[in-house]
Amino acid sequence: MKLYDCTPAPSPRRVRMFIAEKGLTIPMVQVDLRAGEHLKPEFAEINPWRTVPVLELGDGTRISEAIACCIYLEQTHPEPPLMGRDAKEKAVIAMWEHRCEIDGFLAVVEAFRNATPGMKGRALPGTMNYEQIPALIERGRARVRHFFQWLNERLGESEFVAEPAFSIADITAFVCIQFAAWSKITPGEEATNIHRWLEAMRARPSATA
Amino acid sequence: MKLYDCTPAPSPRRVRMFIAEKGLTIPMVQVDLRAGEHLKPEFAEINPWRTVPVLELGDGTRISEAIACCIYLEQTHPEPPLMGRDAKEKAVIAMWEHRCEIDGFLAVVEAFRNATPGMKGRALPGTMNYEQIPALIERGRARVRHFFQWLNERLGESEFVAEPAFSIADITAFVCIQFAAWSKITPGEEATNIHRWLEAMRARPSATA
Repeated sequence: MKLYDCTPAPSPRRVRMFIAEKGLTIPMVQVDLRAGEHLKPEFAEINPWRTVPVLELGDGTRISEAIACCIYLEQTHPEPPLMGRDAKEKAVIAMWEHRCEIDGFLAVVEAFRNATPGMKGRALPGTMNYEQIPALIERGRARVRHFFQWLNERLGESEFVAEPAFSIADITAFVCIQFAAWSKITPGEEATNIHRWLEAMRARPSATA
Repeated sequence: MKLYDCTPAPSPRRVRMFIAEKGLTIPMVQVDLRAGEHLKPEFAEINPWRTVPVLELGDGTRISEAIACCIYLEQTHPEPPLMGRDAKEKAVIAMWEHRCEIDGFLAVVEAFRNATPGMKGRALPGTMNYEQIPALIERGRARVRHFFQWLNERLGESEFVAEPAFSIADITAFVCIQFAAWSKITPGEEATNIHRWLEAMRARPSATA
């Protein structure tokens, strides 16, 4: 098994943190996104959607999409559970994780890719080239601020993003907040619950994965 | 258990098809999205994110996000499996399902909500009001065409979206194609694999769920 990775990129980081929380060691193959290695014909064989992470299994099967990589690892290495122990926990965690991806992660992608000069003509990840749309910079930033707002409320009623324990939902939210900082979007001082939770997250060994 | 639903809307339709494929009967509560029932204060109690579907469990727990509702149902009613039988199948199906959601479903949302007069000020679902952005109409349509292109290639090598059997990935893709037709975006005649697959999908009892 190996993971096609790109150390600075946020999506593979979600899987690296997941791997670290499981206490696993998986060989990583670096794909240099800045040099456009994922857009070269050779990479189409590895992932036709031209994204990382990609988890390559022992039989050669390649799993792209961060959530799908994590599902494989959760199934094959159930302890500690990061996606819930029973039906209700699994559903509650999936709900929070998915909402963090849609409201948080995709919002940061929008703010970052539409504003960054190096992303000209690459306003969405993947196979196709889409031009930047200036109006999406502010929309993306507004969406991220809204994400911070509900996340702060949520963390005022719960120690972790999804109860009852640390889960993949915390990983997605944490990576999202680090990614948002690239675009200088950070939770304000008033977001005291987020800051309390961030401190706990940064203290975990997986925070530097 | 009951499902907060809105018959014409595509997201709850994904869960209704999943329920039908499982052979289950679950009471449905209609939420009139056109009348803005989901934006009324009463609905905030049911889902603060203001979306349907929401699956309410026997103990009152409410699960929003279509994928999370399906995870609960798959766990509590494993037969027939719609999300894979072992680790590899589960990961492969999750990969295709997630990719259909990102490349397909969210693309249709973009094309539809930015173009539809009744969606003025509601260019994204959820709590917040975002203005329509005209440039997103054509971008959304281009994304949907790209989705049709790779889906057609995929269905040329596989009977179902994810091998080896019918799965939640087929449901997401099927609902997405029906939703795209609202915006008059349909697979062209050259997409012969999609049309073969659509015919098989329409023949399933769940197609009218």
